Amino acid sequence: MTAASQLASVLERVDADFDKSLERLFTLLRIKSISADPAFTGDCRKAADHLASDIATIGFDTKVLPTAGHPALIGKSNGAGPANKSGNGAHVLFYGHYDVQPVDPLDLWHRPPFEPVVTDHADGRKIIVARGAEDDKGQLMTFVEACRAWKNVTGALPLDVTILIEGEEEIGSKNFGPFLEQHKSDLKADFALVCDTGMWDQNTPAITTSLRGLVYEEVIIKAANRDLHSGIFGGGAQNPIRVLTRILGGIHDDNGHITIPGFYDGVKDLPPDIRKQWEKLNLTPDAFLKPIGLSLPAGEKDRLLIEQLSSRPTADINGIVGGYTGEGSKTVIPAQASAKISFRLVEGQDPAKIRKAFRDYVAARVPADCKVEFLDHAGAPAIALDWGMKPLAAAKRALTDEWGKDALLIGSGASIPIVADFKRTLGLDTVLIGFGLEDDNIHSPNEKYDLRSFHKGIRSWVRILAAFADTPR
Amino acid sequence: MTAASQLASVLERVDADFDKSLERLFTLLRIKSISADPAFTGDCRKAADHLASDIATIGFDTKVLPTAGHPALIGKSNGAGPANKSGNGAHVLFYGHYDVQPVDPLDLWHRPPFEPVVTDHADGRKIIVARGAEDDKGQLMTFVEACRAWKNVTGALPLDVTILIEGEEEIGSKNFGPFLEQHKSDLKADFALVCDTGMWDQNTPAITTSLRGLVYEEVIIKAANRDLHSGIFGGGAQNPIRVLTRILGGIHDDNGHITIPGFYDGVKDLPPDIRKQWEKLNLTPDAFLKPIGLSLPAGEKDRLLIEQLSSRPTADINGIVGGYTGEGSKTVIPAQASAKISFRLVEGQDPAKIRKAFRDYVAARVPADCKVEFLDHAGAPAIALDWGMKPLAAAKRALTDEWGKDALLIGSGASIPIVADFKRTLGLDTVLIGFGLEDDNIHSPNEKYDLRSFHKGIRSWVRILAAFADTPR
Repeated sequence: MTAASQLASVLERVDADFDKSLERLFTLLRIKSISADPAFTGDCRKAADHLASDIATIGFDTKVLPTAGHPALIGKSNGAGPANKSGNGAHVLFYGHYDVQPVDPLDLWHRPPFEPVVTDHADGRKIIVARGAEDDKGQLMTFVEACRAWKNVTGALPLDVTILIEGEEEIGSKNFGPFLEQHKSDLKADFALVCDTGMWDQNTPAITTSLRGLVYEEVIIKAANRDLHSGIFGGGAQNPIRVLTRILGGIHDDNGHITIPGFYDGVKDLPPDIRKQWEKLNLTPDAFLKPIGLSLPAGEKDRLLIEQLSSRPTADINGIVGGYTGEGSKTVIPAQASAKISFRLVEGQDPAKIRKAFRDYVAARVPADCKVEFLDHAGAPAIALDWGMKPLAAAKRALTDEWGKDALLIGSGASIPIVADFKRTLGLDTVLIGFGLEDDNIHSPNEKYDLRSFHKGIRSWVRILAAFADTPR
Repeated sequence: MTAASQLASVLERVDADFDKSLERLFTLLRIKSISADPAFTGDCRKAADHLASDIATIGFDTKVLPTAGHPALIGKSNGAGPANKSGNGAHVLFYGHYDVQPVDPLDLWHRPPFEPVVTDHADGRKIIVARGAEDDKGQLMTFVEACRAWKNVTGALPLDVTILIEGEEEIGSKNFGPFLEQHKSDLKADFALVCDTGMWDQNTPAITTSLRGLVYEEVIIKAANRDLHSGIFGGGAQNPIRVLTRILGGIHDDNGHITIPGFYDGVKDLPPDIRKQWEKLNLTPDAFLKPIGLSLPAGEKDRLLIEQLSSRPTADINGIVGGYTGEGSKTVIPAQASAKISFRLVEGQDPAKIRKAFRDYVAARVPADCKVEFLDHAGAPAIALDWGMKPLAAAKRALTDEWGKDALLIGSGASIPIVADFKRTLGLDTVLIGFGLEDDNIHSPNEKYDLRSFHKGIRSWVRILAAFADTPR
């Protein structure tokens, strides 16, 4: 029996059991697994334990394993599949992450972020609202629920599956490289699947074939040995906020170019045929920026908006703080000020070189009587996938079948450092498929996941697993 | 009997009662009268009530009076003085403020800020440590205790005194102008005294004859209608921290000049004779900046350090905040960012014009799809006193007698907006005398007041009151 012949029954089961799938997602969403904040270390552990027992109910051998940070879990379907004994099926390694972003500013949430609900979007769509509803709990559960449906209907999975879920993606997956190295032999597979990306739009599925890299730095400027009164010392004593704003304010020029020497070294222009394809996609400021209340592309003026968002490197200040930030006024010159700055990198840029270029740029601009300190929060190169790899075509067909619209191959502006690790450590290529939408508010208050994304996401994976099972390795 | 003949007994009483004076100061220091934070509104009221009853014990008629913000109090010595009936004595209006600055960052305090102690400075000086120890509770109590000593020894004050204490000096005295207007007839006097300034150094008393003005603005930049993921939106969507740092980073040029068009309009150069005097004072970076851990004057490169600090206008960013400021990293593009900026003004600059010039400067640099909002936290012009006014000479003699060193006439970089209001509303000139030192950490953690400043400050006022009483009006 081929997987294809069982497909209809499995899809039916997805529909019939959808309420239970949703309930299981809600249980996961209620766990406050914020990896960035040490106060939630116990909740991260809880999320790992919960997922391990949940996946065990589908017949996976699961274990929660320590890392230098939050734990990861590995589940193996050994013995549970393959259902079809044709021997053709690949062995896939599925990756997701149970950790979520911090929830501040909390006062902008319409409901408590860890009390998930299904509610109505302004335009009538049903949406699941909670921190992690999309990123990545909702997305990873589309795959888990697809496996469950296969198991429930056929007693097995259509191919061998290893599920790998980590808890530090939102803080740069720093400890995950060593973890992969350590568990290498347990993670053998033909290729990897990641469900942490988006669709092209509400109706058009997509496979992501390039990802930007990331360098995330914190810079701390220290001036006087204590806070000073700006009346007595103002004009004579250096102000670290002045130093910091002057440095950061100079990172972009009037045309949106980044001024750090060497920043664009190795960055290639789009191949003319790709640029032509992208031009056709017609991503206008009106379509992309209007929904978020903006109208002017902020990137390099001589580039398409879609290039600014996916094929060009960026610099963004993600946070800044110094001095008095309470209500009213205080005439203080603070002793220090700090900022968090991240760079999205594209193919050809080396994270270590970019970090050094930034640090040199800053250090050269700090007055001789001030000090500067740097913290390294993350670093990962950009990823470009092989458009010709076999599973891509199978997945594209399956997605097109489910959504009734041709699945697009697209570039993403986001960074998923793990993809580089899979290649480097495990020798695996990765297929990136996800059902997120631009208005999901991930990393923001009121994060949501379309109910349709969750439902058709599960159905998509059911189809993709069948397609992989029937594709010769 | 002249005041001078009673002076020795009154000074003796100050010394004998000093422990009690200190106890009374501690009682005031324990009240958490932080005017900037609405959470402490009750404490501000408590401070006003406490001072009113304390001053009443010296025979003042006192009343606590409402303003549009925190209450003020007026105490009048009517009937309590003058002790000498020569009829020569002036009527003085003494001003102080009971409100204090916020205490953050609290973790930098070595002790709780509202639990005053006398302790040892590293160099052996005895110091009083608490928020407000100097600014302005310690300073205003030097005057109150001087009045008490006169009353205790002679049964009366040597001249008529009105004490006026407000509770919003640290937040710009916004409601105090209307209050003065309303209580004008109750506040008649020959001149005003303010104890909120400093000495030249530990051994050299000073009278401040010029004060910088102040314009304090808050600027809020708003970009997208929500926080965004910097991977998905980075490069295409505007980042309000980028906008804010770019604008604020451009306020000073490489030479420390402020670039806001029209900022220096009306600013005069120092008269050559004053500049010569100031050069002689030899205020070196080593003497002034080294104690605070700095070495390079941060102001206009073509000016003396003492000019940068007192006769030249400044721009300082007192606070900035936007995006993620917690531990670790978050790849967010925030919806807004804000900063607090204050300008110290000198003679010739109009606060309203400076505020407008700043707002125009900012508005011209905000991208068309972002919004900017401004909050006005304070505005007051610079003050230059008449060096020839009579009480100045009397006060200078009294200070010189107490400290055994010639009292200097100096300019201060700080702003005391009330001085302009006294002139405008009450027609009064002000004599500014205080016993603060540069290392008092006012507005900072571990604020202190030298025990000697408190003690000799009381003695100084005892002498100054005698000198005023014996000076023909």
